[in-house]
Amino acid sequence: MKLLISILLFPLMLICEDLPSWNEGPAKEAIVKFVKESTLPLEERIAVFDNDGTLWVEQPLYTQVVYAIDQTGIKDDIYKAVAKAFSGMSVEASSEAVKKWLKTARHPRWDKPYTELTYLPMLELLEYLRKNGFKTFIVTGGGQDFVRVFSEKVYGIPPEQVVGSMGKTVFTFKDGKSDLMREPKLLLNTNYGGKPEGIHLMIGRRPHAAFGNSDGDRQMLEYTQNNGLQMLVLHDDAEREYSYGSATGLPNSKVGTFSESLYQEAMMRGWTVISMKKDWKHIFSFEKKE
Amino acid sequence: MKLLISILLFPLMLICEDLPSWNEGPAKEAIVKFVKESTLPLEERIAVFDNDGTLWVEQPLYTQVVYAIDQTGIKDDIYKAVAKAFSGMSVEASSEAVKKWLKTARHPRWDKPYTELTYLPMLELLEYLRKNGFKTFIVTGGGQDFVRVFSEKVYGIPPEQVVGSMGKTVFTFKDGKSDLMREPKLLLNTNYGGKPEGIHLMIGRRPHAAFGNSDGDRQMLEYTQNNGLQMLVLHDDAEREYSYGSATGLPNSKVGTFSESLYQEAMMRGWTVISMKKDWKHIFSFEKKE
Repeated sequence: MKLLISILLFPLMLICEDLPSWNEGPAKEAIVKFVKESTLPLEERIAVFDNDGTLWVEQPLYTQVVYAIDQTGIKDDIYKAVAKAFSGMSVEASSEAVKKWLKTARHPRWDKPYTELTYLPMLELLEYLRKNGFKTFIVTGGGQDFVRVFSEKVYGIPPEQVVGSMGKTVFTFKDGKSDLMREPKLLLNTNYGGKPEGIHLMIGRRPHAAFGNSDGDRQMLEYTQNNGLQMLVLHDDAEREYSYGSATGLPNSKVGTFSESLYQEAMMRGWTVISMKKDWKHIFSFEKKE
Repeated sequence: MKLLISILLFPLMLICEDLPSWNEGPAKEAIVKFVKESTLPLEERIAVFDNDGTLWVEQPLYTQVVYAIDQTGIKDDIYKAVAKAFSGMSVEASSEAVKKWLKTARHPRWDKPYTELTYLPMLELLEYLRKNGFKTFIVTGGGQDFVRVFSEKVYGIPPEQVVGSMGKTVFTFKDGKSDLMREPKLLLNTNYGGKPEGIHLMIGRRPHAAFGNSDGDRQMLEYTQNNGLQMLVLHDDAEREYSYGSATGLPNSKVGTFSESLYQEAMMRGWTVISMKKDWKHIFSFEKKE
Protein backbone atom coordinates (compact mmCIF):
# COMPACT_ATOMS: atom_id res chain seq x y z
CA MET A 1 0.00 0.00 0.00
CA LYS A 2 2.76 2.37 1.04
CA LEU A 3 4.68 1.30 -2.07
CA LEU A 4 1.68 1.94 -4.30
CA ILE A 5 1.23 5.43 -2.86
CA SER A 6 4.92 6.16 -3.41
CA ILE A 7 4.69 5.13 -7.05
CA LEU A 8 1.56 7.20 -7.63
CA LEU A 9 2.98 10.25 -5.89
CA PHE A 10 6.38 10.07 -7.56
CA PRO A 11 5.56 12.29 -10.58
CA LEU A 12 4.03 14.82 -8.16
CA MET A 13 7.19 14.83 -6.06
CA LEU A 14 9.23 15.74 -9.11
CA ILE A 15 7.06 18.79 -9.71
CA CYS A 16 6.94 20.00 -6.09
CA GLU A 17 9.70 22.34 -5.17
CA ASP A 18 11.93 21.51 -2.20
CA LEU A 19 12.24 23.99 0.67
CA PRO A 20 9.47 26.31 -0.59
CA SER A 21 9.61 28.61 2.46
CA TRP A 22 13.31 29.38 1.97
CA ASN A 23 14.36 32.44 0.02
CA GLU A 24 17.11 32.01 -2.54
CA GLY A 25 20.41 32.86 -0.86
CA PRO A 26 23.52 31.42 0.79
CA ALA A 27 21.61 29.37 3.42
CA LYS A 28 19.38 27.53 0.98
CA GLU A 29 22.31 27.12 -1.39
CA ALA A 30 24.46 25.56 1.34
CA ILE A 31 21.74 23.02 2.15
CA VAL A 32 21.03 22.04 -1.45
CA LYS A 33 24.74 21.84 -2.31
CA PHE A 34 25.42 19.62 0.70
CA VAL A 35 22.60 17.24 -0.16
CA LYS A 36 23.17 17.13 -3.92
CA GLU A 37 26.91 16.57 -3.58
CA SER A 38 26.74 14.08 -0.74
CA THR A 39 28.28 10.70 -1.48
CA LEU A 40 27.68 9.38 2.03
CA PRO A 41 26.44 5.81 2.31
CA LEU A 42 22.87 5.60 3.62
CA GLU A 43 23.83 4.48 7.15
CA GLU A 44 26.09 7.53 7.58
CA ARG A 45 23.34 10.00 6.67
CA ILE A 46 22.67 11.34 10.13
CA ALA A 47 21.49 14.90 10.82
CA VAL A 48 21.03 16.41 14.27
CA PHE A 49 18.83 19.35 15.26
CA ASP A 50 18.66 21.35 18.44
CA ASN A 51 15.02 21.97 19.39
CA ASP A 52 14.44 25.22 21.37
CA GLY A 53 15.15 28.19 19.09
CA THR A 54 16.14 25.92 16.18
CA LEU A 55 12.93 24.02 15.45
CA TRP A 56 10.45 26.04 17.52
CA VAL A 57 10.10 29.28 19.49
CA GLU A 58 12.06 29.47 22.76
CA GLN A 59 10.99 32.98 23.87
CA PRO A 60 10.10 34.38 26.34
CA LEU A 61 10.90 31.09 28.15
CA TYR A 62 11.61 27.48 27.12
CA THR A 63 8.25 25.68 26.79
CA GLN A 64 9.39 22.99 29.19
CA VAL A 65 10.01 25.65 31.83
CA VAL A 66 6.56 27.18 31.24
CA TYR A 67 5.15 23.69 31.77
CA ALA A 68 7.16 23.12 34.95
CA ILE A 69 6.08 26.46 36.44
CA ASP A 70 2.45 25.72 35.53
CA GLN A 71 2.61 22.32 37.20
CA THR A 72 4.50 23.26 40.35
CA GLY A 73 3.82 26.97 40.95
CA ILE A 74 7.59 27.47 41.51
CA LYS A 75 8.61 30.66 39.70
CA ASP A 76 11.81 31.78 41.37
CA ASP A 77 13.97 28.71 40.60
CA ILE A 78 13.44 27.12 37.19
CA TYR A 79 15.80 24.19 37.88
CA LYS A 80 13.81 23.35 41.00
CA ALA A 81 10.54 23.67 39.09
CA VAL A 82 11.75 21.34 36.32
CA ALA A 83 13.17 18.79 38.79
CA LYS A 84 9.90 18.75 40.71
CA ALA A 85 7.63 18.63 37.65
CA PHE A 86 9.50 15.62 36.25
CA SER A 87 10.06 13.38 39.26
CA GLY A 88 8.15 11.26 41.74
CA MET A 89 5.96 9.65 39.10
CA SER A 90 6.18 7.00 36.41
CA VAL A 91 7.57 7.94 33.01
CA GLU A 92 4.21 7.14 31.46
CA ALA A 93 2.23 9.30 33.92
CA SER A 94 4.71 12.11 33.31
CA SER A 95 4.31 11.93 29.53
CA GLU A 96 0.53 11.86 29.87
CA ALA A 97 0.66 15.05 31.97
CA VAL A 98 2.78 16.82 29.31
CA LYS A 99 0.51 15.61 26.53
CA LYS A 100 -2.57 16.92 28.34
CA TRP A 101 -0.93 20.29 29.05
CA LEU A 102 0.18 20.77 25.44
CA LYS A 103 -3.44 20.43 24.32
CA THR A 104 -4.62 23.46 26.28
CA ALA A 105 -1.56 25.67 26.90
CA ARG A 106 -1.19 28.70 24.63
CA HIS A 107 1.79 30.91 23.82
CA PRO A 108 1.10 34.42 25.22
CA ARG A 109 2.13 36.27 22.05
CA TRP A 110 0.31 34.30 19.36
CA ASP A 111 -2.36 32.63 21.49
CA LYS A 112 -1.58 29.34 19.72
CA PRO A 113 -0.59 25.90 21.02
CA TYR A 114 3.19 25.67 21.44
CA THR A 115 3.30 22.81 18.94
CA GLU A 116 2.14 25.21 16.21
CA LEU A 117 5.08 27.51 16.89
CA THR A 118 7.47 25.36 14.94
CA TYR A 119 9.46 26.94 12.11
CA LEU A 120 8.01 25.96 8.74
CA PRO A 121 11.36 26.26 6.89
CA MET A 122 12.91 23.83 9.39
CA LEU A 123 10.03 21.36 8.99
CA GLU A 124 10.69 21.51 5.25
CA LEU A 125 14.40 20.98 5.87
CA LEU A 126 13.72 17.88 8.02
CA GLU A 127 11.53 16.52 5.24
CA TYR A 128 14.07 17.35 2.53
CA LEU A 129 16.88 15.60 4.39
CA ARG A 130 14.73 12.51 5.07
CA LYS A 131 13.70 12.40 1.40
CA ASN A 132 17.40 12.20 0.63
CA GLY A 133 18.02 9.29 2.98
CA PHE A 134 19.04 11.18 6.11
CA LYS A 135 17.94 9.93 9.51
CA THR A 136 16.93 13.01 11.51
CA PHE A 137 17.55 13.28 15.25
CA ILE A 138 16.70 15.95 17.78
CA VAL A 139 19.51 16.80 20.19
CA THR A 140 17.92 19.12 22.70
CA GLY A 141 19.42 20.54 25.86
CA GLY A 142 15.93 20.20 27.31
CA GLY A 143 14.40 17.05 28.71
CA GLN A 144 14.54 14.07 26.40
CA ASP A 145 11.17 12.76 27.53
CA PHE A 146 9.46 16.15 27.30
CA VAL A 147 10.33 16.46 23.61
CA ARG A 148 9.48 12.80 22.93
CA VAL A 149 5.83 13.52 23.76
CA PHE A 150 5.33 15.58 20.58
CA SER A 151 8.37 14.88 18.37
CA GLU A 152 6.79 12.17 16.25
CA LYS A 153 3.58 14.06 15.57
CA VAL A 154 5.14 17.50 15.13
CA TYR A 155 8.50 16.74 13.49
CA GLY A 156 8.09 13.15 12.23
CA ILE A 157 10.91 12.16 14.60
CA PRO A 158 10.22 9.03 16.69
CA PRO A 159 11.08 8.90 20.44
CA GLU A 160 14.17 6.74 19.85
CA GLN A 161 15.61 9.56 17.73
CA VAL A 162 15.29 12.18 20.45
CA VAL A 163 18.44 12.90 22.46
CA GLY A 164 18.12 15.21 25.43
CA SER A 165 18.86 15.71 29.09
CA MET A 166 18.24 12.35 30.69
CA GLY A 167 16.95 11.64 34.17
CA LYS A 168 17.48 8.54 36.24
CA THR A 169 14.56 6.11 36.44
CA VAL A 170 14.04 3.06 38.64
CA PHE A 171 12.28 -0.09 37.51
CA THR A 172 9.47 -1.40 39.72
CA PHE A 173 7.35 -4.54 39.32
CA LYS A 174 4.36 -5.17 41.54
CA ASP A 175 1.31 -7.40 41.11
CA GLY A 176 2.31 -8.10 37.52
CA LYS A 177 2.52 -4.39 36.67
CA SER A 178 5.83 -2.79 35.72
CA ASP A 179 6.73 0.89 35.88
CA LEU A 180 9.73 3.14 35.55
CA MET A 181 9.68 5.73 38.31
CA ARG A 182 11.39 9.07 37.81
CA GLU A 183 14.08 10.13 40.24
CA PRO A 184 15.20 13.76 40.63
CA LYS A 185 18.68 12.83 39.40
CA LEU A 186 20.23 13.83 36.09
CA LEU A 187 22.25 11.18 34.22
CA LEU A 188 23.43 13.58 31.53
CA ASN A 189 22.88 17.27 30.81
CA THR A 190 22.89 17.53 27.02
CA ASN A 191 24.02 21.14 26.70
CA TYR A 192 27.45 22.35 25.57
CA GLY A 193 29.86 19.36 25.67
CA GLY A 194 26.91 17.23 26.78
CA LYS A 195 25.50 17.47 23.25
CA PRO A 196 28.24 15.43 21.54
CA GLU A 197 28.37 13.17 24.61
CA GLY A 198 24.62 12.55 24.27
CA ILE A 199 24.99 12.02 20.51
CA HIS A 200 27.59 9.33 21.08
CA LEU A 201 25.51 7.72 23.82
CA MET A 202 22.31 7.59 21.79
CA ILE A 203 23.48 7.44 18.18
CA GLY A 204 27.03 6.12 18.34
CA ARG A 205 28.20 7.86 15.16
CA ARG A 206 29.30 11.34 14.19
CA PRO A 207 26.51 13.17 12.39
CA HIS A 208 27.19 14.79 9.04
CA ALA A 209 24.83 17.72 9.45
CA ALA A 210 24.13 19.75 12.59
CA PHE A 211 21.70 22.61 13.20
CA GLY A 212 21.58 24.86 16.26
CA ASN A 213 21.02 28.44 17.31
CA SER A 214 22.95 29.17 20.49
CA ASP A 215 26.14 28.79 22.50
CA GLY A 216 24.75 25.52 23.89
CA ASP A 217 25.03 24.05 20.38
CA ARG A 218 28.62 25.09 19.75
CA GLN A 219 30.21 21.75 20.74
CA MET A 220 27.69 19.80 18.69
CA LEU A 221 28.76 21.75 15.62
CA GLU A 222 32.43 21.36 16.50
CA TYR A 223 31.86 17.61 16.77
CA THR A 224 30.68 17.49 13.13
CA GLN A 225 33.27 20.09 12.09
CA ASN A 226 35.10 18.21 9.33
CA ASN A 227 32.11 16.23 8.48
CA GLY A 228 29.56 18.07 6.35
CA LEU A 229 27.06 20.85 7.00
CA GLN A 230 26.83 23.07 10.09
CA MET A 231 24.18 25.78 10.44
CA LEU A 232 23.05 28.26 13.08
CA VAL A 233 19.66 30.00 13.13
CA LEU A 234 20.03 33.70 13.95
CA HIS A 235 16.96 35.28 15.54
CA ASP A 236 17.05 38.68 13.83
CA ASP A 237 13.37 39.14 13.06
CA ALA A 238 11.63 41.02 15.88
CA GLU A 239 8.61 41.68 13.72
CA ARG A 240 7.72 38.13 12.77
CA GLU A 241 9.40 36.34 15.71
CA TYR A 242 12.10 37.72 18.05
CA SER A 243 15.42 39.46 17.81
CA TYR A 244 18.01 38.36 20.35
CA GLY A 245 21.27 36.60 20.98
CA SER A 246 23.94 39.39 21.26
CA ALA A 247 25.63 38.32 17.99
CA THR A 248 25.89 41.15 15.47
CA GLY A 249 24.54 43.62 17.99
CA LEU A 250 21.25 41.87 18.77
CA PRO A 251 19.87 42.36 22.28
CA ASN A 252 20.86 39.82 24.91
CA SER A 253 18.27 37.47 26.30
CA LYS A 254 17.64 35.14 29.23
CA VAL A 255 17.47 32.14 26.89
CA GLY A 256 19.22 31.26 23.66
CA THR A 257 22.49 33.20 23.84
CA PHE A 258 24.14 33.52 20.41
CA SER A 259 27.37 35.16 21.50
CA GLU A 260 29.77 37.23 19.47
CA SER A 261 32.39 34.50 19.93
CA LEU A 262 30.05 31.85 18.51
CA TYR A 263 29.41 34.11 15.54
CA GLN A 264 33.15 34.53 15.00
CA GLU A 265 33.73 30.79 15.27
CA ALA A 266 30.99 30.21 12.70
CA MET A 267 32.65 32.64 10.29
CA MET A 268 36.08 31.10 10.87
CA ARG A 269 34.96 27.49 10.41
CA GLY A 270 32.59 28.04 7.51
CA TRP A 271 29.40 27.34 9.41
CA THR A 272 26.37 28.91 7.74
CA VAL A 273 24.32 31.44 9.68
CA ILE A 274 20.62 31.43 8.78
CA SER A 275 19.00 34.85 9.00
CA MET A 276 15.35 34.34 9.88
CA LYS A 277 14.63 37.74 8.41
CA LYS A 278 16.36 37.26 5.08
CA ASP A 279 16.34 33.51 4.52
CA TRP A 280 12.81 32.59 5.54
CA LYS A 281 9.78 33.46 3.40
CA HIS A 282 7.45 32.27 6.13
CA ILE A 283 8.25 31.49 9.73
CA PHE A 284 5.12 29.61 10.82
CA SER A 285 2.73 27.50 8.80
CA PHE A 286 -0.26 29.46 10.14
CA GLU A 287 1.04 32.63 8.45
CA LYS A 288 0.20 31.13 5.10
CA LYS A 289 -3.41 30.48 6.05
CA GLU A 290 -4.19 33.79 7.70
CA MET B 1 17.48 1.06 -7.16
CA LYS B 2 16.53 -0.40 -3.75
CA LEU B 3 12.91 -0.30 -4.87
CA LEU B 4 13.68 -2.11 -8.10
CA ILE B 5 15.54 -4.85 -6.24
CA SER B 6 12.60 -5.26 -3.83
CA ILE B 7 10.17 -5.65 -6.72
CA LEU B 8 12.37 -8.18 -8.48
CA LEU B 9 13.01 -10.19 -5.32
CA PHE B 10 9.40 -10.21 -4.17
CA PRO B 11 8.34 -13.48 -5.90
CA LEU B 12 11.47 -15.14 -4.47
CA MET B 13 10.61 -13.95 -0.98
CA LEU B 14 7.23 -15.66 -1.24
CA ILE B 15 8.88 -18.99 -2.02
CA CYS B 16 11.58 -18.84 0.68
CA GLU B 17 10.55 -20.34 3.96
CA ASP B 18 10.82 -18.21 7.11
CA LEU B 19 12.88 -19.42 10.07
CA PRO B 20 14.40 -22.43 8.25
CA SER B 21 16.68 -23.40 11.15
CA TRP B 22 13.80 -23.73 13.60
CA ASN B 23 12.18 -27.12 14.19
CA GLU B 24 8.39 -27.22 14.27
CA GLY B 25 7.29 -26.90 17.88
CA PRO B 26 5.94 -24.51 20.51
CA ALA B 27 8.78 -21.97 20.16
CA LYS B 28 8.47 -21.50 16.40
CA GLU B 29 4.68 -21.56 16.72
CA ALA B 30 4.75 -18.79 19.35
CA ILE B 31 6.87 -16.57 17.10
CA VAL B 32 4.80 -17.08 13.96
CA LYS B 33 1.50 -16.67 15.83
CA PHE B 34 2.72 -13.43 17.41
CA VAL B 35 3.82 -11.99 14.09
CA LYS B 36 0.85 -13.17 12.03
CA GLU B 37 -1.71 -11.97 14.57
CA SER B 38 -0.03 -8.68 15.36
CA THR B 39 -2.17 -5.61 14.71
CA LEU B 40 0.45 -3.21 16.05
CA PRO B 41 0.98 -0.01 14.08
CA LEU B 42 4.42 0.15 12.44
CA GLU B 43 5.94 2.59 14.93
CA GLU B 44 5.04 0.29 17.85
CA ARG B 45 6.82 -2.71 16.31
CA ILE B 46 9.83 -2.80 18.57
CA ALA B 47 11.67 -5.98 19.51
CA VAL B 48 14.57 -6.18 21.97
CA PHE B 49 17.28 -8.84 22.18
CA ASP B 50 19.84 -9.55 24.83
CA ASN B 51 23.23 -10.33 23.22
CA ASP B 52 25.45 -12.67 25.28
CA GLY B 53 23.85 -16.13 25.38
CA THR B 54 20.83 -14.95 23.35
CA LEU B 55 22.37 -13.96 20.03
CA TRP B 56 25.86 -15.43 20.42
CA VAL B 57 27.95 -17.73 22.63
CA GLU B 58 28.75 -16.41 26.11
CA GLN B 59 30.80 -19.38 27.40
CA PRO B 60 33.31 -19.91 28.89
CA LEU B 61 33.48 -16.10 29.38
CA TYR B 62 31.72 -13.07 27.87
CA THR B 63 33.66 -12.05 24.75
CA GLN B 64 34.04 -8.51 26.07
CA VAL B 65 35.79 -9.90 29.15
CA VAL B 66 38.10 -12.04 27.01
CA TYR B 67 38.96 -8.86 25.11
CA ALA B 68 39.56 -6.87 28.31
CA ILE B 69 41.87 -9.56 29.75
CA ASP B 70 43.74 -9.75 26.44
CA GLN B 71 44.24 -5.99 26.36
CA THR B 72 45.15 -5.42 30.02
CA GLY B 73 46.57 -8.72 31.30
CA ILE B 74 44.33 -8.40 34.38
CA LYS B 75 42.84 -11.85 35.07
CA ASP B 76 41.80 -11.77 38.71
CA ASP B 77 39.28 -8.91 38.56
CA ILE B 78 37.14 -8.77 35.43
CA TYR B 79 35.48 -5.47 36.40
CA LYS B 80 38.88 -3.87 36.77
CA ALA B 81 40.00 -5.36 33.44
CA VAL B 82 36.91 -4.03 31.64
CA ALA B 83 37.17 -0.58 33.25
CA LYS B 84 40.83 -0.34 32.25
CA ALA B 85 40.37 -1.69 28.71
CA PHE B 86 37.63 0.84 27.97
CA SER B 87 38.93 4.09 29.45
CA GLY B 88 41.66 6.65 28.98
CA MET B 89 41.22 6.85 25.22
CA SER B 90 38.84 8.32 22.68
CA VAL B 91 35.68 6.42 21.78
CA GLU B 92 36.95 6.10 18.22
CA ALA B 93 40.35 4.69 19.26
CA SER B 94 38.56 2.27 21.56
CA SER B 95 36.28 1.01 18.80
CA GLU B 96 39.23 0.62 16.44
CA ALA B 97 41.02 -1.53 19.04
CA VAL B 98 37.98 -3.78 19.42
CA LYS B 99 37.56 -4.05 15.65
CA LYS B 100 41.17 -5.05 15.22
CA TRP B 101 41.00 -7.64 18.03
CA LEU B 102 37.83 -9.23 16.63
CA LYS B 103 39.62 -9.87 13.34
CA THR B 104 42.25 -12.14 14.90
CA ALA B 105 40.81 -13.47 18.18
CA ARG B 106 39.46 -17.02 18.08
CA HIS B 107 37.09 -18.89 20.39
CA PRO B 108 39.05 -21.71 22.10
CA ARG B 109 36.46 -24.40 21.45
CA TRP B 110 35.68 -23.87 17.77
CA ASP B 111 38.78 -21.95 16.71
CA LYS B 112 36.53 -19.45 14.90
CA PRO B 113 36.16 -15.67 15.15
CA TYR B 114 33.69 -14.73 17.89
CA THR B 115 31.51 -13.01 15.32
CA GLU B 116 30.86 -16.39 13.66
CA LEU B 117 29.54 -17.79 16.93
CA THR B 118 26.15 -16.17 16.50
CA TYR B 119 23.06 -18.35 16.61
CA LEU B 120 21.70 -18.90 13.12
CA PRO B 121 18.06 -19.36 14.29
CA MET B 122 18.26 -16.00 16.06
CA LEU B 123 19.69 -14.30 12.95
CA GLU B 124 16.71 -15.71 11.04
CA LEU B 125 14.39 -14.44 13.77
CA LEU B 126 15.85 -10.91 13.55
CA GLU B 127 15.35 -11.01 9.80
CA TYR B 128 11.81 -12.38 10.07
CA LEU B 129 10.78 -9.67 12.53
CA ARG B 130 12.31 -6.92 10.38
CA LYS B 131 10.57 -8.30 7.30
CA ASN B 132 7.35 -7.84 9.24
CA GLY B 133 8.04 -4.22 10.09
CA PHE B 134 9.71 -4.65 13.47
CA LYS B 135 12.60 -2.44 14.45
CA THR B 136 15.15 -4.68 16.19
CA PHE B 137 17.28 -3.48 19.10
CA ILE B 138 20.01 -5.12 21.12
CA VAL B 139 19.75 -4.60 24.87
CA THR B 140 22.94 -6.05 26.26
CA GLY B 141 24.19 -5.98 29.83
CA GLY B 142 27.63 -5.67 28.26
CA GLY B 143 29.23 -2.51 26.97
CA GLN B 144 27.12 -0.58 24.48
CA ASP B 145 30.12 0.54 22.46
CA PHE B 146 31.70 -2.92 22.40
CA VAL B 147 28.62 -4.42 20.74
CA ARG B 148 28.23 -1.45 18.38
CA VAL B 149 31.53 -2.35 16.72
CA PHE B 150 30.05 -5.47 15.08
CA SER B 151 26.26 -5.18 15.48
CA GLU B 152 25.57 -3.70 12.06
CA LYS B 153 27.69 -6.18 10.14
CA VAL B 154 26.79 -9.26 12.18
CA TYR B 155 23.15 -8.64 13.12
CA GLY B 156 22.04 -5.89 10.73
CA ILE B 157 21.47 -3.68 13.77
CA PRO B 158 22.91 -0.13 13.51
CA PRO B 159 24.80 1.50 16.43
CA GLU B 160 21.84 3.72 17.36
CA GLN B 161 19.79 0.56 18.02
CA VAL B 162 22.26 -0.90 20.50
CA VAL B 163 21.46 -0.36 24.18
CA GLY B 164 24.04 -1.46 26.72
CA SER B 165 26.05 -0.45 29.74
CA MET B 166 27.08 3.13 29.12
CA GLY B 167 30.24 4.86 30.22
CA LYS B 168 30.80 8.54 30.75
CA THR B 169 32.67 10.40 28.02
CA VAL B 170 34.07 13.93 27.97
CA PHE B 171 34.12 16.16 24.89
CA THR B 172 37.42 17.74 23.94
CA PHE B 173 38.21 20.16 21.10
CA LYS B 174 41.77 21.08 20.28
CA ASP B 175 43.36 22.51 17.12
CA GLY B 176 40.12 22.00 15.25
CA LYS B 177 39.94 18.30 16.21
CA SER B 178 37.15 17.00 18.40
CA ASP B 179 37.16 13.81 20.47
CA LEU B 180 35.12 12.08 23.10
CA MET B 181 37.40 10.70 25.79
CA ARG B 182 36.30 7.71 27.84
CA GLU B 183 36.17 8.04 31.61
CA PRO B 184 36.19 5.02 33.91
CA LYS B 185 32.70 5.93 35.15
CA LEU B 186 29.51 4.03 34.46
CA LEU B 187 26.39 6.09 33.65
CA LEU B 188 24.07 3.08 33.62
CA ASN B 189 24.55 -0.66 34.13
CA THR B 190 22.02 -2.28 31.82
CA ASN B 191 21.53 -5.54 33.68
CA TYR B 192 18.48 -6.56 35.72
CA GLY B 193 16.35 -3.41 36.33
CA GLY B 194 18.91 -1.49 34.26
CA LYS B 195 17.59 -3.21 31.12
CA PRO B 196 14.14 -1.56 31.14
CA GLU B 197 15.78 1.66 32.37
CA GLY B 198 18.16 1.54 29.40
CA ILE B 199 15.28 0.74 27.05
CA HIS B 200 13.39 3.80 28.18
CA LEU B 201 16.49 5.95 27.95
CA MET B 202 17.42 4.85 24.43
CA ILE B 203 14.10 3.85 22.86
CA GLY B 204 11.46 5.66 24.88
CA ARG B 205 8.71 3.10 24.25
CA ARG B 206 7.79 -0.30 25.64
CA PRO B 207 8.87 -3.06 23.28
CA HIS B 208 6.36 -5.68 22.18
CA ALA B 209 8.77 -8.57 21.93
CA ALA B 210 11.70 -9.41 24.20
CA PHE B 211 14.31 -12.17 24.00
CA GLY B 212 16.79 -13.14 26.69
CA ASN B 213 18.43 -16.13 28.31
CA SER B 214 19.32 -15.35 31.91
CA ASP B 215 18.30 -13.79 35.20
CA GLY B 216 19.76 -10.49 33.98
CA ASP B 217 16.98 -10.36 31.37
CA ARG B 218 14.10 -11.00 33.78
CA GLN B 219 13.13 -7.33 34.27
CA MET B 220 13.26 -6.68 30.54
CA LEU B 221 10.72 -9.45 30.00
CA GLU B 222 8.60 -8.19 32.91
CA TYR B 223 8.63 -4.74 31.32
CA THR B 224 7.02 -6.13 28.14
CA GLN B 225 4.83 -8.53 30.18
CA ASN B 226 1.36 -7.52 28.96
CA ASN B 227 2.65 -6.47 25.67
CA GLY B 228 3.33 -9.32 23.25
CA LEU B 229 5.99 -12.00 23.02
CA GLN B 230 8.58 -12.95 25.65
CA MET B 231 11.13 -15.72 25.07
CA LEU B 232 14.12 -17.20 26.89
CA VAL B 233 16.84 -19.28 25.28
CA LEU B 234 17.68 -22.33 27.41
CA HIS B 235 21.21 -23.65 26.93
CA ASP B 236 20.50 -27.38 27.15
CA ASP B 237 22.70 -28.65 24.35
CA ALA B 238 26.16 -29.62 25.65
CA GLU B 239 26.97 -31.46 22.46
CA ARG B 240 26.44 -28.67 19.94
CA GLU B 241 26.95 -25.69 22.31
CA TYR B 242 26.78 -25.70 26.15
CA SER B 243 24.48 -26.89 28.88
CA TYR B 244 24.16 -24.57 31.85
CA GLY B 245 21.98 -22.24 33.84
CA SER B 246 20.65 -24.32 36.80
CA ALA B 247 17.06 -24.26 35.46
CA THR B 248 15.60 -27.76 35.04
CA GLY B 249 18.63 -29.33 36.66
CA LEU B 250 21.26 -27.88 34.29
CA PRO B 251 24.71 -27.28 35.81
CA ASN B 252 25.39 -23.84 37.23
CA SER B 253 27.87 -21.55 35.52
CA LYS B 254 29.94 -18.42 36.11
CA VAL B 255 28.05 -16.57 33.39
CA GLY B 256 24.46 -16.68 32.19
CA THR B 257 22.51 -17.89 35.22
CA PHE B 258 19.06 -19.16 34.26
CA SER B 259 17.69 -19.81 37.73
CA GLU B 260 14.90 -22.11 38.80
CA SER B 261 12.91 -19.03 39.88
CA LEU B 262 13.25 -17.44 36.42
CA TYR B 263 12.04 -20.71 34.90
CA GLN B 264 9.04 -20.74 37.24
CA GLU B 265 8.24 -17.11 36.44
CA ALA B 266 8.40 -17.93 32.72
CA MET B 267 5.91 -20.78 33.19
CA MET B 268 3.62 -18.65 35.32
CA ARG B 269 3.59 -15.67 32.94
CA GLY B 270 3.41 -17.60 29.70
CA TRP B 271 6.90 -16.74 28.51
CA THR B 272 8.19 -19.25 25.96
CA VAL B 273 11.37 -21.17 26.73
CA ILE B 274 13.43 -22.03 23.65
CA SER B 275 15.25 -25.34 23.96
CA MET B 276 18.42 -25.11 21.88
CA LYS B 277 18.46 -28.89 21.68
CA LYS B 278 14.88 -29.39 20.54
CA ASP B 279 13.96 -26.14 18.81
CA TRP B 280 17.05 -25.47 16.73
CA LYS B 281 17.94 -27.50 13.64
CA HIS B 282 21.28 -25.75 13.37
CA ILE B 283 23.01 -23.59 15.93
CA PHE B 284 25.72 -21.93 13.83
CA SER B 285 25.77 -21.10 10.15
CA PHE B 286 29.13 -22.88 9.70
CA GLU B 287 27.51 -26.21 10.68
CA LYS B 288 25.62 -26.19 7.42
CA LYS B 289 28.74 -25.75 5.33
CA GLU B 290 30.91 -28.32 7.05
